[in-house]
Amino acid sequence: MEKRVYYFGEGASEGQGLGKDLLGGKGSGLAEMTALGIPVPPGFTITTAVCREFFDAGDRLPEGLEGELFASLERVGAAVGAVFGDPSRPLLVSVRSGARASMPGMMDTVLNLGLNDVTVEGLSARTQNPRFAWDAYRRFLTMYANVVLGRGREPFEEALQHARLKAGVRHDHEVPAEALRALVEGYKKLLGESFPQDPRAQLLGAVGAVFRSWHNDRARVYRKMNGIPDAWGTACTVQAMVFGNLGDTSATGVAFTRDSNTGERRLNGEYLPNAQGEDVVAGIRTGHKLTTRDALASYTEDSLEARMPEAFARFSEVAAKLEAHFRDMQDLEFTIQDGRLWLLQTRSAKRTMRAAVRAAVEMVREGLLTRDEALLRVEAGRLPELFLPRLDEAEAKSAEAKGLLLGKGLGASMGYACGAVVFTADEAEREAAQGRDVLLVRRETSPEDIHGMHAARGILTATGGLTSHAAVVARGMGKCCVAGCSAISVDYRREVLRVTTPEGAREFKKGDVLTLDGTTGRVFLGRLKASAAVSDAHLDEVLAWADDKRRLGVRANADTPLDARNARRFGAEGIGLCRTEHMFFEADRIAAVREMILADDTPSRQRALDKILPMQREDFVGIFNEMKGLPITIRLLDPPLHEFLPEAEGDLVSLAKELGVSLEVVKVRNEALREFNPMLGHRGCRLGLVYPEIYATQARAIAEAVVLCARGGADPRPEVMIPLVAAEEELRRLRALVVETMDGVFAREGVRVPYLVGTMLELPRACLVADRIAAHAEFFSFGTNDLTQTTWGLSRDDAGRFLPFYVDQKVLPADPFATLDADGVGALMKLGVERGRGARPGLKVGICGEHGGDPASVGFCHGLGLDYVSCSPFRVPTARLAAAQAALRG
Amino acid sequence: MEKRVYYFGEGASEGQGLGKDLLGGKGSGLAEMTALGIPVPPGFTITTAVCREFFDAGDRLPEGLEGELFASLERVGAAVGAVFGDPSRPLLVSVRSGARASMPGMMDTVLNLGLNDVTVEGLSARTQNPRFAWDAYRRFLTMYANVVLGRGREPFEEALQHARLKAGVRHDHEVPAEALRALVEGYKKLLGESFPQDPRAQLLGAVGAVFRSWHNDRARVYRKMNGIPDAWGTACTVQAMVFGNLGDTSATGVAFTRDSNTGERRLNGEYLPNAQGEDVVAGIRTGHKLTTRDALASYTEDSLEARMPEAFARFSEVAAKLEAHFRDMQDLEFTIQDGRLWLLQTRSAKRTMRAAVRAAVEMVREGLLTRDEALLRVEAGRLPELFLPRLDEAEAKSAEAKGLLLGKGLGASMGYACGAVVFTADEAEREAAQGRDVLLVRRETSPEDIHGMHAARGILTATGGLTSHAAVVARGMGKCCVAGCSAISVDYRREVLRVTTPEGAREFKKGDVLTLDGTTGRVFLGRLKASAAVSDAHLDEVLAWADDKRRLGVRANADTPLDARNARRFGAEGIGLCRTEHMFFEADRIAAVREMILADDTPSRQRALDKILPMQREDFVGIFNEMKGLPITIRLLDPPLHEFLPEAEGDLVSLAKELGVSLEVVKVRNEALREFNPMLGHRGCRLGLVYPEIYATQARAIAEAVVLCARGGADPRPEVMIPLVAAEEELRRLRALVVETMDGVFAREGVRVPYLVGTMLELPRACLVADRIAAHAEFFSFGTNDLTQTTWGLSRDDAGRFLPFYVDQKVLPADPFATLDADGVGALMKLGVERGRGARPGLKVGICGEHGGDPASVGFCHGLGLDYVSCSPFRVPTARLAAAQAALRG
Repeated sequence: MEKRVYYFGEGASEGQGLGKDLLGGKGSGLAEMTALGIPVPPGFTITTAVCREFFDAGDRLPEGLEGELFASLERVGAAVGAVFGDPSRPLLVSVRSGARASMPGMMDTVLNLGLNDVTVEGLSARTQNPRFAWDAYRRFLTMYANVVLGRGREPFEEALQHARLKAGVRHDHEVPAEALRALVEGYKKLLGESFPQDPRAQLLGAVGAVFRSWHNDRARVYRKMNGIPDAWGTACTVQAMVFGNLGDTSATGVAFTRDSNTGERRLNGEYLPNAQGEDVVAGIRTGHKLTTRDALASYTEDSLEARMPEAFARFSEVAAKLEAHFRDMQDLEFTIQDGRLWLLQTRSAKRTMRAAVRAAVEMVREGLLTRDEALLRVEAGRLPELFLPRLDEAEAKSAEAKGLLLGKGLGASMGYACGAVVFTADEAEREAAQGRDVLLVRRETSPEDIHGMHAARGILTATGGLTSHAAVVARGMGKCCVAGCSAISVDYRREVLRVTTPEGAREFKKGDVLTLDGTTGRVFLGRLKASAAVSDAHLDEVLAWADDKRRLGVRANADTPLDARNARRFGAEGIGLCRTEHMFFEADRIAAVREMILADDTPSRQRALDKILPMQREDFVGIFNEMKGLPITIRLLDPPLHEFLPEAEGDLVSLAKELGVSLEVVKVRNEALREFNPMLGHRGCRLGLVYPEIYATQARAIAEAVVLCARGGADPRPEVMIPLVAAEEELRRLRALVVETMDGVFAREGVRVPYLVGTMLELPRACLVADRIAAHAEFFSFGTNDLTQTTWGLSRDDAGRFLPFYVDQKVLPADPFATLDADGVGALMKLGVERGRGARPGLKVGICGEHGGDPASVGFCHGLGLDYVSCSPFRVPTARLAAAQAALRG
Repeated sequence: MEKRVYYFGEGASEGQGLGKDLLGGKGSGLAEMTALGIPVPPGFTITTAVCREFFDAGDRLPEGLEGELFASLERVGAAVGAVFGDPSRPLLVSVRSGARASMPGMMDTVLNLGLNDVTVEGLSARTQNPRFAWDAYRRFLTMYANVVLGRGREPFEEALQHARLKAGVRHDHEVPAEALRALVEGYKKLLGESFPQDPRAQLLGAVGAVFRSWHNDRARVYRKMNGIPDAWGTACTVQAMVFGNLGDTSATGVAFTRDSNTGERRLNGEYLPNAQGEDVVAGIRTGHKLTTRDALASYTEDSLEARMPEAFARFSEVAAKLEAHFRDMQDLEFTIQDGRLWLLQTRSAKRTMRAAVRAAVEMVREGLLTRDEALLRVEAGRLPELFLPRLDEAEAKSAEAKGLLLGKGLGASMGYACGAVVFTADEAEREAAQGRDVLLVRRETSPEDIHGMHAARGILTATGGLTSHAAVVARGMGKCCVAGCSAISVDYRREVLRVTTPEGAREFKKGDVLTLDGTTGRVFLGRLKASAAVSDAHLDEVLAWADDKRRLGVRANADTPLDARNARRFGAEGIGLCRTEHMFFEADRIAAVREMILADDTPSRQRALDKILPMQREDFVGIFNEMKGLPITIRLLDPPLHEFLPEAEGDLVSLAKELGVSLEVVKVRNEALREFNPMLGHRGCRLGLVYPEIYATQARAIAEAVVLCARGGADPRPEVMIPLVAAEEELRRLRALVVETMDGVFAREGVRVPYLVGTMLELPRACLVADRIAAHAEFFSFGTNDLTQTTWGLSRDDAGRFLPFYVDQKVLPADPFATLDADGVGALMKLGVERGRGARPGLKVGICGEHGGDPASVGFCHGLGLDYVSCSPFRVPTARLAAAQAALRG
């Protein structure tokens, strides 16, 4: 039979090296510390395997566990010179949870276990501190009642409050022993028979309760949010109590080996003299700073360094030893009992991204880590946090407490935004033009709203998922967005935002100010303040190391000169996707675009295109000039034409007027362009084939811009990309059209600039026949957004109805729009690469879907042997780091 | 250099065995006949390769051709004792086209070439028939002017008419020689210098003209309609003229070796005494019957058999010999010159499907063909023609002449229908209930229209392609449908059908009678008559042979007991797709279905489902009873829920009333269910997972029906199919739900019937991870409609906007919804089969998309090793035959 209980203490550490999977984070940390000779109260850990056995058996402790458990308990008693349940030398223990992944505060703990009516007297006599003994008993009863027996804390808190009042004191630690004894009597009456006087029964009850707390609501939610499997279970550690509340030479505290906010190397934390650990965690009393340097000037004398210099020196030593051992920033819990230091916990410290980056860089300088190790330590996916202003958490908490939290949607695009509510893109633009901060609030957004999204500080939608139009575009813009906030509904007619709360519905009007938190999806009423974002030299250093290591190129998706400038700033080595349709929406050209769409025949279409040509040329000139010498993949027109037409009756009327045709004509044409499944409709190269004059005009604009820029010395490097190809013949014809047009311009102008023509692989069929398509393509770029949609038969815009349910209920391990689905979409990509390069060795292959900025997906692309990934500008650092990590992992 | 000209005549046949690809149908037939010793006027064939050279050189005859050509021409002259251009013994020739595939009457011909002002006199002297000689010259000038010089026929016809009037005769052949000579003078004046007197120049001009005629409009259209590649080109045959117009011992005619309409074995055809071939073809004079038996009683004396018994006997012999040689029904052209028979053409006869089937069966009986050969002879794709009433072509022609052809859409579902126009499904149902024939005319149809489509005789839509809802459902119902008729528009509000014609718009009202031709897509005003369809014993015989040969099983897609009965009648061996949603639309349950959809919570949804349960159970009982002992694949609910909700305001109002909720509630819910891309939305198993009670209710209805039928001895064999699975976990959960529910019913009822649970493979991802999905599936069925949509990123409903253009412009070789795309969709199917069977050997795999009834696709499925195909009932014979053909081809 497998060993279920692992002892640690007095230098013996049965669990050393067995790791967190079996012993949980806490158990594993204690085993390691013990083995390192660091002072740890002796104890033992019951494995996570036992927890799973417990659940499998219908919440019963497995046969045979008791024997192992009490044998280890005897060893603990022997080590500290006490006996569990012994009236004269009672051993008290703590019973704590500890999972593989840290879930701070989510599960339950029982302290001071082993006390009963007899042992409390023994404790009192032995410590010569009746107040301490009765206080411990009082605490134990409260915790036992709550954790093991499932009782509410309120009657216990009330009785305690009553005792304080009666004693005429303000704080718990001022309540005298006699009053505590009376309080205990009261508590016991509350519990009656349900509280076992037998310490062994207490212990078995507490172990079961700790296991069960794996399934409490908080823990479930936390796991869901952090992707921790329900199946893991928790370990349970039973450990001899040490007391920080034995008087002024005792204390308890928490500490970080480095600053968890900035990453600065300085031991910091809080402690409380004469207190138990829960007092610090619960925040009942205000802690003092650990070090002199750390404290505010006026409170320097209260620091641990000042008050207990020896214990502090010992602690500093231990902290340094632990950091060196684990080679990472540690989060420590300690207790000082009668001047003697005990470590209760060590774990990797949670930290902000800024801290993570700085710590990584400095640990390399300190020789603690190699560069490669440091690169692997930084979570690439969290890098964008560095570039976005974030909501101040203290502010958010206080707002929530005041009832200002209106609802929660999906944190679709990070950052934070506050502004006045507007309901239309035009309004957003108007208000923004007058210098006002606005939030664009829509049921959902469409490409028509782009200008409003640009103008707004943030976007809030009632429907749509993480890959809805609003979410994708907002991320591309690096703009804050909360999507799919089901608590809200928008009444465009009445211009009212309706919020459903448990207390009923509230309505907000245009101009009301909200704050959005794009990280967590929270929506607040009123203007909340942000914590500022600053530039970061440590990050530059990490990214420079990453660039040395990575094999994958990193480009950015950028549609405008401004985007392009951003992209270069973030280190992009080119543009992997420049969507020309976004240019079509600019205010100065949408009229010509609409004229083109509503044209009845080729000549009128060409006339409208002739108006668009010089504007497109200017767009390209701007981008080429920004990206001097770097490749730019320009995608020819992709979306269905009706996306460019207005929807509202009023807009149709003015469009008709503008174009000098009847409203009827505009309406009929608008209706004729409407599609059942626009995603699968007349778009991409299908437009280029049916209306070759559109692509020809775009190709001409590109070539003419190339000529202008080449003459200006900007070294333009265009790569023309034909979208939505499914069959080789589509590409063959359109490639010929593009080449004929561009070469024609070059011949006319007497300038010859090399360029590539390639295609976007975004349909399953294209991947399957990639060998034939490659015959006409000088490059491939995987459009994994659409490839995911078609491979899965899953519309991004509609997935909100069931995809969250799927991820929630674990039908799928992850949202395939967020993380590339290696088994399905990835299998098609693999075919595409193999077949494409099989037919055309050395074919350049990249990816330009949203996945290009997701670390796991970047890793997958590295494995596939792609040449580059392309992503939103502000995700470029993520991609650079993730590419390096993939290279390091091999 | 390759040989360009192949001589035939006098028993020598240079081209024998070289086939149609090189010599064209006519040239090849003449070479074969010559080799068989059948009397053929000598001549030679210029190859199709020369035609392609001609085009490549910009319509110039290749260097060196002249030498070969005139050498062969000398040989022809020697054989017939004449010399080309010789004044005393002039050789006259015909110059005819002849492509690989028969394109009857599409290209040009020149007869009597070699005549000029000198040779006409020689001909006159030699034949001692000046009238004949001048008539031949007159004819030649007319043809040359038209074919070679591109002149209109009118002035020539006018002059001829004038000559008739002047001579006081009614027919051309009564115009005397002198008048014809004068006519010739007039013709030459019309032509001036452009007509070459040099016969060699005439011949070279005519050969070029015949080649060029490959590109005339008629020929282009014909090729497009029949899928003949433009690149093939035509051959050109130059042949010594024989004359059927040398007096009463001469004649010319056409014949079939069997009846091309019924297939009966009897020589039949028409001839004209004293006439040239063009007279028969042009129908200028009414032909006489060939045989006595064939003629009407009163005209028996005019038959060839009666008038020229020897020539007839010789011809009968030749006809029999040719049929035996080619082992197929022949279409012959012959001329009798002075009592001597000459064959001018032999080719496989075009025939109706009925004739094809009968001829195939009888040729086997006659020992002409083996069964296997006969099976391969019958075009499987055309079998459905046998089951549908068809528009009478003569009637159609006369209606068109009267201007009653209103427009042309897509021949979406064969057959023919006439009836009064109605605009809504409800109206269709009401009118039909009163015994009136109606046509349902819609912009497009939706599942809500099903009852109206059932009730109507035919369906006409303004938009949508061959795979639009209207087209697919109509084909499934075996109902006539013209889809995507762009000439019409429907104004529902005014209840008006508007037809745009070149002359302007016309409007039609409810009740106006139209006739639809579902084969060609024509829409006529008024009631046209049909040719009747009868049952066919020969077909039964062919299908029985097919069943012996095929390896693939054949099932039908059938949703109702009536469909199921039809399916069995057509020989289906089971139901491959029973769509339960069609049951949901029945009038007696749609209310409960809508209640279910609008339910706010699970209990109310379950209450509505409880109402649906007994109705679904009855549906299944009906189908099980029809299909005793045969497997039935039942697909659980698939379409997005909003398809079940009404669209019109009025219908929403009554729905709200029915359900006792506010209109607002209905509207909000309706709106909430609307999707951007419903095809990729919340449907299929995604419904089953989010609302497990729906699938559980369906599973219960199936199990309870199984119990009832098993007790009744109907041997029910259900195969429950979960649609739209993309990931194994979806299927694992839903399979568990179905099994638990069904086994629960069986346990309760004490009846145990074996059943299967499987899935539809209709998403690319499902094919890619088929190994994992197979772990939870006892069968796969490829849903190739949706698989084509997702693999191509192509919505069936929207494809009408560009797919016809694609097929037309040959971007794609075929509509992938009509013929399975082997390279893309087929590649995924191959992966699906390999991976599925790799994980679960012997896994049953079928196909239930529209492709199951397409012969080429059936062949592909055979090659893939599928177990069965499933298709519309009336396509089952096609599938049976196509499966046999695939097996025979190996």
